[in-house]
Amino acid sequence: VVLAGGIGAAKLIEGLVRLVDEQELTIITNTADDFELYGLHISPDLDIVTYTLAGIVNREKGWGMANDTFNFLAMAEKYGLPSWFKIGDMDLATHMFRTQMMSEGKSLTDATQMICRRLGLRCTILPMTNDKVECRVRTATEEMHFEEYYVKRQSGDPIEAVIYRGFDRAKPAPGVIAALETADGIIVAPSNPIVSIGTILKVKGVREALGRVRAKTLAISPIVGGAAIKGPADKMMAAMGVEVSALGVASLYRDFIDTMVIDRVDAYLSDRIRDLGLEVIVTNAVMSTLEDKVALAESALRGVSRG
Amino acid sequence: VVLAGGIGAAKLIEGLVRLVDEQELTIITNTADDFELYGLHISPDLDIVTYTLAGIVNREKGWGMANDTFNFLAMAEKYGLPSWFKIGDMDLATHMFRTQMMSEGKSLTDATQMICRRLGLRCTILPMTNDKVECRVRTATEEMHFEEYYVKRQSGDPIEAVIYRGFDRAKPAPGVIAALETADGIIVAPSNPIVSIGTILKVKGVREALGRVRAKTLAISPIVGGAAIKGPADKMMAAMGVEVSALGVASLYRDFIDTMVIDRVDAYLSDRIRDLGLEVIVTNAVMSTLEDKVALAESALRGVSRG
Repeated sequence: VVLAGGIGAAKLIEGLVRLVDEQELTIITNTADDFELYGLHISPDLDIVTYTLAGIVNREKGWGMANDTFNFLAMAEKYGLPSWFKIGDMDLATHMFRTQMMSEGKSLTDATQMICRRLGLRCTILPMTNDKVECRVRTATEEMHFEEYYVKRQSGDPIEAVIYRGFDRAKPAPGVIAALETADGIIVAPSNPIVSIGTILKVKGVREALGRVRAKTLAISPIVGGAAIKGPADKMMAAMGVEVSALGVASLYRDFIDTMVIDRVDAYLSDRIRDLGLEVIVTNAVMSTLEDKVALAESALRGVSRG
Repeated sequence: VVLAGGIGAAKLIEGLVRLVDEQELTIITNTADDFELYGLHISPDLDIVTYTLAGIVNREKGWGMANDTFNFLAMAEKYGLPSWFKIGDMDLATHMFRTQMMSEGKSLTDATQMICRRLGLRCTILPMTNDKVECRVRTATEEMHFEEYYVKRQSGDPIEAVIYRGFDRAKPAPGVIAALETADGIIVAPSNPIVSIGTILKVKGVREALGRVRAKTLAISPIVGGAAIKGPADKMMAAMGVEVSALGVASLYRDFIDTMVIDRVDAYLSDRIRDLGLEVIVTNAVMSTLEDKVALAESALRGVSRG
């Protein structure tokens, strides 16, 4: 079982599917980035993970579909529709299909399963919840949805606060708790610990389930050398008063993980992470090539194995 | 003022805008072809007229946008969404924009005006009604929406009946009756007399208004040499028990038109049309080139002029 955000998680899972049977994988994915645009239900993290595993992701960007065109978007912009979120023409079909299913009363879980099936995936991708939750960001002057901050504002302004909405009522989606309870091993992907993993942990019962599972649980640090590999995780950790380092990440997860995987440049933090009661694996945590992804996945699998 | 269906009307109007100030033109357009797909409000005839006047129509097909791509549709088909209606990627933005406005409570009239404005049009394009009306076709085995019969079934099966839905409650859209009452001349475009013009005439008060207007009213026959120039108008007339000829068209409109424009091949019908109490203009009624369009528009303008 993998707890996943977007691009970092997708890269790791690309490595994992080369080492284990795809059918053995369950990916619990953040949905706090979800939002509505043109009346469509957009699930950025679910799509990144799905497209990556289906081999149709745009590899340079890490999101969207390869060889997609943007003719809808260009015309939408002419009409004055919002165009900051870069939906490609093929990508749009996913949002339309999902929205159509949900308007017929199906859950996000059902819609995700159907998308996976149509794209030929054999793993299980689960949204963390089917309830509406939202992660928002407050800057000095404004409050906005995380995707708006990340994509439209390019994470420009300093963050004063991260605001979680809807989590008091959000139940884990069907299969989430059961997947954790029956897992052979649990890997927390190198995703943003505040907006991606942090939100999964905020869904009622998830953190508690992680605390009691028998499987070994391991997290990979998305912070390498004191900065986020991608995205604003570092800024957000700082805003939350968390040390921007692999140690800071470990401190956020210490109550439920057994092992922390950190990059070689952060090896000097090993002792302090061990002081938190965690095991440490030092390896290359930056995934550039497919070999990097497979190697990191291999370290993670070894870390959660009982052997 | 032009009463318009799709492709035939759009061609005529292309000629008209070269002869009169675009701002002087009001086009009352059939909306009985409208339907919902993927939760979007699709208005085939409004779009054909709008795209043609904006100079962005696909000229070979007569519908859709020029240089459009169909990547959304290809992906939608992979997901198992209906793909019989060939929505292009840029075209999709129009449906999205319209649907978005209507979901915010705007009428189809407002949405159409906004689309026209964004595309730089200066004429007035009015939907015939803002109420939901539908034209359906019954074959020996099935009943279906006209667009499904026309596009999906390629007008294949013989038609047993044409069914009009919603017309008992449909009010003319704002501006429709006023446009007729204040018109300098009214031209019934060479559109399908059953599903395009016939539906406009079925909207409460329209036929009556046409009967009492002071402006000269003229219709151009879409039937030339006993067959429809395009589409299933001939089959549908036959199904309704109307003679499939320019005379048959004249008989459908005789209560409110002054003049009938027919093609040279139908000149032999002139006397019988005059016997209905109508004037007859014999000219080339088949529009292949821009010159044809302008020439036919010129004949029509002369026919409705009071000079």
